Amino acid sequence: MNINTHYQEVNESYLFSTIAKKVNEYAAANPDKRIIRLGIGDVTLPLCPAVISTLHQAVDEMGAKETFHGYGPEQGYDFLKTAIQGYYQQKNVQLALDEIFISDGAKSDVGNILDLFDANNTVLVPDPVYPVYVDTNIMAGRKVTFMNATQENGFLPMPDASVHADIIYLCSPNNPTGAVYNRAQLQQWVDYANAEHAVILFDAAYECFISDPNLPKSIYEIEGAKTCAIEFCSFSKTAGFTGTRCGYTIVPEELLSGTVSLNKMWLRRQTTKFNGVSYIIQKGAAAVFTPDGQKQIKEAIAYYMDNAKTIANGMEKLGVWYTGGQNSPYIWLRCPENMESWAFFDKLLHEANVVGTPGAGFGENGKNFFRLTAFGDKEATKEAVERILSVFEK
Amino acid sequence: MNINTHYQEVNESYLFSTIAKKVNEYAAANPDKRIIRLGIGDVTLPLCPAVISTLHQAVDEMGAKETFHGYGPEQGYDFLKTAIQGYYQQKNVQLALDEIFISDGAKSDVGNILDLFDANNTVLVPDPVYPVYVDTNIMAGRKVTFMNATQENGFLPMPDASVHADIIYLCSPNNPTGAVYNRAQLQQWVDYANAEHAVILFDAAYECFISDPNLPKSIYEIEGAKTCAIEFCSFSKTAGFTGTRCGYTIVPEELLSGTVSLNKMWLRRQTTKFNGVSYIIQKGAAAVFTPDGQKQIKEAIAYYMDNAKTIANGMEKLGVWYTGGQNSPYIWLRCPENMESWAFFDKLLHEANVVGTPGAGFGENGKNFFRLTAFGDKEATKEAVERILSVFEK
Repeated sequence: MNINTHYQEVNESYLFSTIAKKVNEYAAANPDKRIIRLGIGDVTLPLCPAVISTLHQAVDEMGAKETFHGYGPEQGYDFLKTAIQGYYQQKNVQLALDEIFISDGAKSDVGNILDLFDANNTVLVPDPVYPVYVDTNIMAGRKVTFMNATQENGFLPMPDASVHADIIYLCSPNNPTGAVYNRAQLQQWVDYANAEHAVILFDAAYECFISDPNLPKSIYEIEGAKTCAIEFCSFSKTAGFTGTRCGYTIVPEELLSGTVSLNKMWLRRQTTKFNGVSYIIQKGAAAVFTPDGQKQIKEAIAYYMDNAKTIANGMEKLGVWYTGGQNSPYIWLRCPENMESWAFFDKLLHEANVVGTPGAGFGENGKNFFRLTAFGDKEATKEAVERILSVFEK
Repeated sequence: MNINTHYQEVNESYLFSTIAKKVNEYAAANPDKRIIRLGIGDVTLPLCPAVISTLHQAVDEMGAKETFHGYGPEQGYDFLKTAIQGYYQQKNVQLALDEIFISDGAKSDVGNILDLFDANNTVLVPDPVYPVYVDTNIMAGRKVTFMNATQENGFLPMPDASVHADIIYLCSPNNPTGAVYNRAQLQQWVDYANAEHAVILFDAAYECFISDPNLPKSIYEIEGAKTCAIEFCSFSKTAGFTGTRCGYTIVPEELLSGTVSLNKMWLRRQTTKFNGVSYIIQKGAAAVFTPDGQKQIKEAIAYYMDNAKTIANGMEKLGVWYTGGQNSPYIWLRCPENMESWAFFDKLLHEANVVGTPGAGFGENGKNFFRLTAFGDKEATKEAVERILSVFEK
């Protein structure tokens, strides 16, 4: 057998294992210290009551012959696709049901979508970045071109007409920086992509944290996006589904390469290599869009955004530059005193007993920056910020 | 953008859509006729009580902050991997937990495993075959070499030392033929694969239907298999999970290409492009291995195998050649009176009002054969067989 040798070209990521090792060593040496973790990108609030009661109903259906569900459509049940269609209508985006594909999460789709493309493509990825965008391309033998996201451009890189691109990754609100593109900026990206015959892979996993009505939640709010963009979204952060697993991907019917429909290619990919998401989980996901579900998930989002405000206010007091935290659960700050991100990590761990994520783990441009997340407990988040302030106000 | 042009080389499958069209047309023209479907490969009995009650418990855990589960390990929770490890011990197969990967189903893994291999590989696939083996390779630009499964070899093709192979697909008990390899036959395959430095992709999705203690349920019961085989299995047919979605794949640590570990490659693939199966579903799957779960799923399997016996007895009376039905839920019969499979389909639909699957849909060698399945209702299966006999005994 001949293996895919590109797997050997992927860098091992030691980011989260190194963090875990440092935290464990410190905790073992200092058993009396209470460590607060603001590093995780995982939710902590439970599934909302509307989802829980619907999951119970769906489980009961699976236990009786009359209501049992076997194989479902690979691309998802219409009851869930219709609910998502309605959600997009609220953003003034009209989607056909055939443009909506249900999956077990955005990470799977962001990786698997690359099946549709040749190895020979110019891939544009921001730095810093969610590492999956880079690794999945390296594994398929593609070269990646980085575009600089910096303090100067607010960590929102814009297209450079002198650079050719075939596949463009955008994530807004961004992970790890929390920065959000406005309409004019996304319009520039869409115009550039259409001119280049490029495809934008738009990661909208954090769209539900946008409260500013002027900021776009979907790339399809931008004119011309349906001929150049695929959008990935997820229930993970919207409704606490990180361990429950459901997401969706939009591939517009207008998205063509020559005369070939990418929508039909993705349908072929999913019907051949996927067998759909559990009926039970799809029922739970659909409950998110009911009036009760919407009310309940908005309470959870407000809880997290209250934490984000606590952290952002702390950064204001500290007097450091930061982005995110307004329409995003991530706060991306410049390390005080010109520290490098790993040195800042160590100081925070040792002196404030607070864990965050060093920006260096997300790329070269993150080396003086640091990510704090709003997904923790409210009281613990307040205490963590007070501790950080007391360390640096000494 | 440059698309993967190999997608244009995949044949559209019209098998099940053509069947549906023919059945719908007949039903519309003959509203008084009660059609019995013995064509589906989907289960019809509900999830067993042990699974249902555990699913309810897991849903409740997800509804309380103290017991909520966020992101889990991409390769699955240890509680489920340990249960699977114990299941393999019953077959005298020892597996390390790191060799077991939980997924949302065998179809995903059978497709995604090909990420690990170069386009340049000689792929050996039986004809007739589950179409996914062929299509996933064509989509990745690989040529497929077919090996003939025929009435003469009992639809169990054996290795030909004069033919080189890199990737070999075996499915036992087989879909669509129901034929099962014995130990000596699988030993020949394992020896051949090791000699060729090939990998066997062994689809064990129907292993639970084997009742003959002399027949192997896992390729790892065969000496030397751990250096040449990856095994795919699923809860779909074992425990009625076709709509609940859970499966697992075994990649042995001894499986190497040169010095490169395929186990580490698959771990890398899954941690990069997958985020694990729902905690709720994994809890439900683990309940399959409890004493209650085992007792209950065995009752369902016995129910289906009783149907298989009904069909097989009917074929004996009819005097046609058939395979399967003893250790498999599929019966693969030679169409009577030398009919071609689509002509037999039409005759069965029109004269017996019974739906089956024409063998031609699974490959060239299936054109005079026909698949009947044991997953239907007991009384309906009996009636279907009586109707078939009355048509051909006229």
